[in-house]
Amino acid sequence: MNTTSSKIGLPPGTLVHVGTQWSDEVKISVTDYTPTTIEEYQVNTIEEVFQLKEHTSVSWINIDGLHDTALITKLSEHFELDTLMMEDIINTQHRPKSEGFEDHEFITLKMLGLTADGKSIVEEQLSIILGKNWVISLQEKEGDIFHEFRVRVKDGKAKARKKGPDYLFYRLIDMVVDNYYHVTEHFGDTIEAMEESIIAHPDRRALIDIQQLNKKASQFRKAISPLREAILNLQKNESELLSEDTLRYIKDLMEHVVYINELIDHQKEMIGNLMDLYHSGVSYKMNQIMQLLTLVSTIFIPLTFIAGIYGMNFAYMPELQWHWGYFGVWGLMIAVAIVMVFYFKKKKWL
Amino acid sequence: MNTTSSKIGLPPGTLVHVGTQWSDEVKISVTDYTPTTIEEYQVNTIEEVFQLKEHTSVSWINIDGLHDTALITKLSEHFELDTLMMEDIINTQHRPKSEGFEDHEFITLKMLGLTADGKSIVEEQLSIILGKNWVISLQEKEGDIFHEFRVRVKDGKAKARKKGPDYLFYRLIDMVVDNYYHVTEHFGDTIEAMEESIIAHPDRRALIDIQQLNKKASQFRKAISPLREAILNLQKNESELLSEDTLRYIKDLMEHVVYINELIDHQKEMIGNLMDLYHSGVSYKMNQIMQLLTLVSTIFIPLTFIAGIYGMNFAYMPELQWHWGYFGVWGLMIAVAIVMVFYFKKKKWL
Amino acid sequence: MNTTSSKIGLPPGTLVHVGTQWSDEVKISVTDYTPTTIEEYQVNTIEEVFQLKEHTSVSWINIDGLHDTALITKLSEHFELDTLMMEDIINTQHRPKSEGFEDHEFITLKMLGLTADGKSIVEEQLSIILGKNWVISLQEKEGDIFHEFRVRVKDGKAKARKKGPDYLFYRLIDMVVDNYYHVTEHFGDTIEAMEESIIAHPDRRALIDIQQLNKKASQFRKAISPLREAILNLQKNESELLSEDTLRYIKDLMEHVVYINELIDHQKEMIGNLMDLYHSGVSYKMNQIMQLLTLVSTIFIPLTFIAGIYGMNFAYMPELQWHWGYFGVWGLMIAVAIVMVFYFKKKKWL
Amino acid sequence: MNTTSSKIGLPPGTLVHVGTQWSDEVKISVTDYTPTTIEEYQVNTIEEVFQLKEHTSVSWINIDGLHDTALITKLSEHFELDTLMMEDIINTQHRPKSEGFEDHEFITLKMLGLTADGKSIVEEQLSIILGKNWVISLQEKEGDIFHEFRVRVKDGKAKARKKGPDYLFYRLIDMVVDNYYHVTEHFGDTIEAMEESIIAHPDRRALIDIQQLNKKASQFRKAISPLREAILNLQKNESELLSEDTLRYIKDLMEHVVYINELIDHQKEMIGNLMDLYHSGVSYKMNQIMQLLTLVSTIFIPLTFIAGIYGMNFAYMPELQWHWGYFGVWGLMIAVAIVMVFYFKKKKWL
Amino acid sequence: MNTTSSKIGLPPGTLVHVGTQWSDEVKISVTDYTPTTIEEYQVNTIEEVFQLKEHTSVSWINIDGLHDTALITKLSEHFELDTLMMEDIINTQHRPKSEGFEDHEFITLKMLGLTADGKSIVEEQLSIILGKNWVISLQEKEGDIFHEFRVRVKDGKAKARKKGPDYLFYRLIDMVVDNYYHVTEHFGDTIEAMEESIIAHPDRRALIDIQQLNKKASQFRKAISPLREAILNLQKNESELLSEDTLRYIKDLMEHVVYINELIDHQKEMIGNLMDLYHSGVSYKMNQIMQLLTLVSTIFIPLTFIAGIYGMNFAYMPELQWHWGYFGVWGLMIAVAIVMVFYFKKKKWL
Repeated sequence: MNTTSSKIGLPPGTLVHVGTQWSDEVKISVTDYTPTTIEEYQVNTIEEVFQLKEHTSVSWINIDGLHDTALITKLSEHFELDTLMMEDIINTQHRPKSEGFEDHEFITLKMLGLTADGKSIVEEQLSIILGKNWVISLQEKEGDIFHEFRVRVKDGKAKARKKGPDYLFYRLIDMVVDNYYHVTEHFGDTIEAMEESIIAHPDRRALIDIQQLNKKASQFRKAISPLREAILNLQKNESELLSEDTLRYIKDLMEHVVYINELIDHQKEMIGNLMDLYHSGVSYKMNQIMQLLTLVSTIFIPLTFIAGIYGMNFAYMPELQWHWGYFGVWGLMIAVAIVMVFYFKKKKWL
Repeated sequence: MNTTSSKIGLPPGTLVHVGTQWSDEVKISVTDYTPTTIEEYQVNTIEEVFQLKEHTSVSWINIDGLHDTALITKLSEHFELDTLMMEDIINTQHRPKSEGFEDHEFITLKMLGLTADGKSIVEEQLSIILGKNWVISLQEKEGDIFHEFRVRVKDGKAKARKKGPDYLFYRLIDMVVDNYYHVTEHFGDTIEAMEESIIAHPDRRALIDIQQLNKKASQFRKAISPLREAILNLQKNESELLSEDTLRYIKDLMEHVVYINELIDHQKEMIGNLMDLYHSGVSYKMNQIMQLLTLVSTIFIPLTFIAGIYGMNFAYMPELQWHWGYFGVWGLMIAVAIVMVFYFKKKKWL
Repeated sequence: MNTTSSKIGLPPGTLVHVGTQWSDEVKISVTDYTPTTIEEYQVNTIEEVFQLKEHTSVSWINIDGLHDTALITKLSEHFELDTLMMEDIINTQHRPKSEGFEDHEFITLKMLGLTADGKSIVEEQLSIILGKNWVISLQEKEGDIFHEFRVRVKDGKAKARKKGPDYLFYRLIDMVVDNYYHVTEHFGDTIEAMEESIIAHPDRRALIDIQQLNKKASQFRKAISPLREAILNLQKNESELLSEDTLRYIKDLMEHVVYINELIDHQKEMIGNLMDLYHSGVSYKMNQIMQLLTLVSTIFIPLTFIAGIYGMNFAYMPELQWHWGYFGVWGLMIAVAIVMVFYFKKKKWL
Repeated sequence: MNTTSSKIGLPPGTLVHVGTQWSDEVKISVTDYTPTTIEEYQVNTIEEVFQLKEHTSVSWINIDGLHDTALITKLSEHFELDTLMMEDIINTQHRPKSEGFEDHEFITLKMLGLTADGKSIVEEQLSIILGKNWVISLQEKEGDIFHEFRVRVKDGKAKARKKGPDYLFYRLIDMVVDNYYHVTEHFGDTIEAMEESIIAHPDRRALIDIQQLNKKASQFRKAISPLREAILNLQKNESELLSEDTLRYIKDLMEHVVYINELIDHQKEMIGNLMDLYHSGVSYKMNQIMQLLTLVSTIFIPLTFIAGIYGMNFAYMPELQWHWGYFGVWGLMIAVAIVMVFYFKKKKWL
Repeated sequence: MNTTSSKIGLPPGTLVHVGTQWSDEVKISVTDYTPTTIEEYQVNTIEEVFQLKEHTSVSWINIDGLHDTALITKLSEHFELDTLMMEDIINTQHRPKSEGFEDHEFITLKMLGLTADGKSIVEEQLSIILGKNWVISLQEKEGDIFHEFRVRVKDGKAKARKKGPDYLFYRLIDMVVDNYYHVTEHFGDTIEAMEESIIAHPDRRALIDIQQLNKKASQFRKAISPLREAILNLQKNESELLSEDTLRYIKDLMEHVVYINELIDHQKEMIGNLMDLYHSGVSYKMNQIMQLLTLVSTIFIPLTFIAGIYGMNFAYMPELQWHWGYFGVWGLMIAVAIVMVFYFKKKKWL
C-alpha cells in the first residue's frame, strides 16, 4: 500500500510507476501472425515495435515490466494512446476497469494465482489494449499463464490464428478468468480440509487459518468483483473494433465472471460456517473439561468432608470407638459416591 | 470442482465434457407424437434421430449421458445448434440460464433430489432445447422424474398430446421445478425434527447436523436462484417458438420459482434459529452443571473448614474437652448448610 | 407442507385442492344489493348462483370450502374465469398475488388471526374475483371477519350499498388488512410483556418463547410482504372494472400495507433485542453464581490450609504447645478472611 | 398501539380519532399577515376561520387537538379538503407522507422531542395543509416549537412576512426537521457518556440503558425515514402552489433529512459498538475473577495436600519424628508456592 | 455536534457559522496567473479581491476561516453567489455535495488527516466555487495540503498554469482525494500491526483500540461516501464551465473515490475480523487457565481425600499399624496421579 503515497500530490497524467518493482529489465516480445504465417521474436528497444502499428497481420506486443516510464511514454505517443489510460496501466493498484476510446479499447484486470506453498494469493495487474490490428498486453513481471496458448498459436492449432485481433484480445482476458477457477478450487479444497480438521482438533491454529483464508477470499473478491462492471462496459461500448462474434464470446465470459462471483460469495459463507464450527468446537472441549472438574469435585468434596469429620480430635466422639466404625465410614463414602454417579448418569452429565 | 480445471486454457467452443462421468453408455430415446398417434423407441446412433428435424409431429429426443462429445458435435451440426450453447450443455457445472436463438430456445437448469438416506442433495444438470417441432433434452445420467409423464403421454391422458412442442418444453421445466418442492419439504420436516431434538439434547452431533443442513440449503439456493433470471429471460425473449398460451404457463412457473426462493430464504432463517437454540441449549446445560458444582462446593467448603479446625492438634483447645462438643459441631455444620441452601433457594439458584 | 406433494407431476390447470380440508360441506351464501334493495340467502348448489352473472345489482357470492373441485370447475366455466387462476385459488399455499384479466380482476391473500390461546397464527387463504357486477370470494372455511360488515350492509349503513362491486372488492381486502393490525398489536404487547419477564427471570422457557415469537413474526412477514406487490399490481392494471374513486382507496390501502410491513420489520428488530437481553440475563446470573463460588472458595481455601497445617502430627511443632496457640490461629484466620473480603469489596466483586 | 383497533372494521373515510387524547379542549389560533400588516387571535368555533379561505393575506390556522371530529369534518367541508387525507390527519399513528391535490398540498410528519428526564422520545403528529393563500396546521396538543417563530413573525423580523403561504408551509416543516437535531445530539452525547461509563463499570444497568437507547434510535428512525420519500414527493408534485424559490428551500431541507438519516444510521452502529464493549467488559471482569479463583486454588490445593499428608496417623511415618520436619515442610510449601507464582507470572496470568 | 443547535430555529439563508471557531483571523490569499505571468499576495479586506471577478487571468482566492459572516456576505453579494450555497459553506458539518448554478459550480467536501499522534482523524471542510475565470476555496483554518502545489504553480512546473480555472478547480478536489490515501494507508498499517499484537496479547487495551479504529473508519466512511454522489453530480451537470478535458479528469477522480470507498469497506471487514480474533484470543487464554485449574484440582482432590482418610482417628484402622502403610499410601497416590495425567494426555487436555 505504501507505494501509493509516492504519487500523492502529483497532477493527473504524470506517469509514475506505482507498485512493487518486480523485474529489473523490461522484456518486450512480439507475436505477429496471419492465418498462414507466424513470427515470434523479442526486441530490445520499444522503437522496434513501432512499425507493427501499420501491419495488416495481427500483432501481439507483450511487455513485462512497467517501471520504465520512458518506454511507456514512447509507446503511448507512437500508438496515440490515451494519457490517463497509460497512468492507470502503470498504477498497478488500480481496480479492474475497461474503457473505450475512438481507436482503441482498454481493459485492466488482475491475474491471480497462489504462491507455491498455497498460503497467499499473488496478484499481478494485466492491462490489454486493442487497436486496429494489434494487441498490446502489459504486465508487471514475466508470467507464464499465456505460455501454453503461445505454443498453440505457433503450432497453428489455436483458433486465434484464423481470427482477428479482437479475438486475441478476448482470449487473453478469457485465460485470466479461467485461471480464477484454480483459486476458487483451492479455496473449495481448503475449506473442505479445514472442516474435517476443525471437527477433529479445534485449536487456536485453526482459527488463525480460517482468518487467513477469509482474508484471502476477501482479497480475491475485491480483485474480481469490479471485473463484472468492466466486462459489461466492453459489451456496451459498441466499439467497431469488436466483431459481433467476439461480443458473443465476451457475453459468455461475463457469465463465467458472474459465476465466479457467486462462488466466492458462497465460499465466504462457508468460511463463516467454519468459524461457527471452530467456536462450537472450542466451547465443546471446554465444556467437557469443566464437566470433568465438576464431576471429580462434586464427588470428592463430600467424601473429604466425611474424612475431615473423623479427623477431629474431640475427646468424646462415640463412632471412633466402634469396632466397625472405620469400615462403616468407607461404606458410607462408597454409597455417597455411587449415588452421585447415578445422579450424573441420569442427568446425562457423564 | 476439480473437473473444471481440465478445461482451463482451452479456447471457447471446444467441446470438453466437464463433470462426473455418470454412465458408460449414452442412451437416446425418442418420443414422437401427434394428438392421434404416438411412437416411442430407443436408437443406438445419433444419426437415426436426424430425420426427426423435418417431421411435423412433435419429437422429443432425450439424451442421457453427455460425455460422448463426438455425438454431441454431430447433433449440434445437424440441428444447427449454437456452439457456445453446446459448450454450456456439456459443462455440467454451468449455472442455470436461458438463451434465445433465431430458430431455437435453450434453457439449462438443475434437477435436484435427495439421496436415498436423505443426507445429501443430488444435483444433475438438465438442458432443454426447443426447435420448430422438436424438443431435445440432455441430462448427465438416466433419470426417472419424467417417467410418469412419459406414461401419461403414451396413454394419451397428458394435455401435452394436444399441444405443440413449446408446451412439452414448458412441461419438462415444470416437472423439474415441481420436484424442488420435495427438497423444501424435506428441509421443512428436518428443521422441525431437529428443533425438537435440539431442545431435548443439544449435543455436538446436533451442531454438525445443523451445519450440514445449512450447507445443503445454501447449495440448493445457489442452484435455483439463477433460475428466476433464466425464466424471466424466456418470458422476455419474444420468441416465435413460444405461443402466448405457453407464455402464460411460464409466467405461472415463474411464480413457483419465486415462491421456492422465498421458502428457502425463510428456511435459511429457521436454520439460523436452530443454531441459536443449540448454542443456548449447550450453555444452559453447562450452566446447570456449574450451578451444581457451585452448590456442592459452596456448602461443603465451609463445613470442611470447620472439621479442619477441630482436627488441629493444639495442646489447649477447650472445645475438644466439652462433652457435647462433637455434637455441637455437627449442629453448627447442619445449621450452616441449611442457611446456605435457604440463601440459594431465595436467589433462585436451586 | 406435505400436501403440496400431491400436486407434483400433474399438468398445470388441473384443479387439485392443495391444503387442509377444513369443512366437510361447502357453504355458498349470496348477498345481492342495490342502494335501495337487498337480498341475503344461502344456496345449496352452485348452479343457483349462475343467473347472478347477468344481474345489474351488485352480487356478492361467498364460498366457504375449496375442496369440492367439481363445484369450482362449474363456477369457473360459467363465469368464464381463467383456469390457471382457479388453480391458484384452490392451492391454499399460494403466495399473495393479483392478476388482471379482460373481464375480471383477481386477488388472493392471507387472512391472519391468532388462535384463542394466542400461541400460533392461523392462516387462511382468501381469493376475491371482481367481475362486471359481481364479486366472488372464496375461503377455506367459514370465517367471521366479514360478519359485522354484512350486518351493516344489510342495515343499509354501509357505504358499500351506494357504491359498485369494485368498492365491495376493495372493502373485502381492506377488512383483511385491518385485521393484520390485531396481529401486530399482539406482537407488540407480547414483546413488551416478554421484555419485563426476561429482565426478571431469564430462564430457558423465555428463550423458547422468543423463538416462537420470532417464528410467528417471520411467518407473518412471509404472508404479507408479497401483498405490497399484489396491491401495486392492482393499481397499475388500469382495469376498467376499478373506478378512479376505488383506486384512491386502494392507494390508501397500499399505505397501510407498507406501514404494517415496516412495523413487522421493527418488531423483528425488537425480538432480536429480546434475544440479546435474554443472553445477557443468563450470563449475568451465571456470573453472579461464579462470583459466589469464587468468593467462598478463595476465602476458605487458605483458611482450610491453615487448619491443615496444625492438624499435622509432627513430633516437634512449637506452636501446638503455646497456651494461646489455638486462639492465635483463630485470630490469624479471621484476619485473612477480613483482608480478602476487603480486597473483593475494593475490586467491586462483592 | 391499542387505539388502532378501535378503527378496525370501519369503512375508509370515516373520521375516527386514533391516538391518545391529549387535550380536552381544541384550541384554534389564527395568524393572518401581509408584508405590512399582521393579526393574531384565537377563535372559539371553527366557523370563525371560514372567511379566511378567501382572504388575500397569508392565513395560518393552527389547530391543537384532533379528537373533535365534528370540527374536523366542518373544516374539511368548508375548505374542500380530501376526505381520505382528513382521515390520515386524525389517525395520529400514520407514517409520514405527502400528497398533492388539485388545490391543496398536504404533508404529515412527526414532531420528535425528548421528555424532561431525557428517557423517552415524545412523538407528536403534525399535519400541514397548504392552500391558495392559507396554511392549516393540525397537531395533537399545544406545542411550543413554533413559539419563537411566531414572535419573529409578529415583530416583522421573519423572512416569512415577505413571502407567500408556500414559504410558511416550508418553514413549518423546516422547524420540525431542525428540531430533530436536538434528538440526534442527545443520542450523540448519551452514546459518548455511556461509552465512558461502560469502560469503567460494565454492569447490567448499562445493558438495559443500551437497549433503551437502541429502542429510542429505532423509533426515531422509523419516524423519520419515510420523511425522505414524503419530501421527495413534494418536490416532484410540480404543484402550482409551490414557487420555484420554495422548491429550492425544500431541496435544501431534503439534504438535512438525508443527513439526519445517515447520522442515525451511524449512531445505530455506535450503539452496536457499545453493546460489544459491554459484553467484552463483562467477560473481562468475569475472567479476572476466574483468574483469581484459579490462582488461589492452584496454589493452595497442593499445599493443603501436603498438610494432609502429615496429618495422617500412620504408626510409622519417619518424617514426623525428624526434629526439623515441621520446618522442612514449611520450606517445601513456600518453595512450591513460589514456583507456581513464577510460572503464572511467566504465563502472564498474574 | 453541539454547535448545530445554535442554528435551529433560524430561517434558511441566514448565515450563521456552525462549527468550531478555528482561527481568530480570516486569512485571504490570492494566486492570479496566466501561462506566462503569476502574482501571489495576501489581502486584508475582502473588497480587495472584488476586482478579480472581471480579470481574464485565472484567479484563485483562498479564504481560511469561516466565522466572519460579514465578510462571507460581502463576498457572496459581489460574486453573485447563491445564498443557500453560502449557508452550506459556513455550516461546517454539512455532508459533501456539489451543486451547479447558472454561472458557478460548487462543491463542498471534507479534508481528512490524522493528528500527529495518529489517534484521531481531523476533519476540515473545504468548499470550492468555480466561476468564469476564478476559483474561490474556503476552509475552516489554514491548511497545508495545497502548499506543495502552490510552489509548483509559482515555479511554472504545474500543468495548471497552462489550463483554465476548471482545471484548478479539479486539481484542488484531486489533492484532497489523494490525501485520503494517507488515511487508508494508516488504517491498513494499523490493522496489520494490531493483528500481530492481538495474536500475541489479546488484552482489554486491544479491544478499546479496535473500537477506536472502527469508529475512525466509520467516521471516514461517513465523510467520503457522499462524495461519490457529489462528483457524479459534477459530471452530470453539463456545466459550460467545465471543459470536456476536465470532465475526463473528473471521471478519473470518480474512480479513485469509488476505489477508496471499496477500500474502506474492505478495511471495516478486516476490523471486524480483528474483533473476532480478539474475542477468540481472550477465550483461548481463559480456557488455558481453566484447563490448569481443572488439572490441578482434579489431580489433587482425590489425593487430598486419601490423605484425609488416613487422618481419621478411628480406634481400629488396620492400615495405620502396617509398617509399610505410609509408603504404600504414597505409592497409591503417585499411581493415581500418573493415571490421571495419562488420561489427560490422551484426551489432549494437557
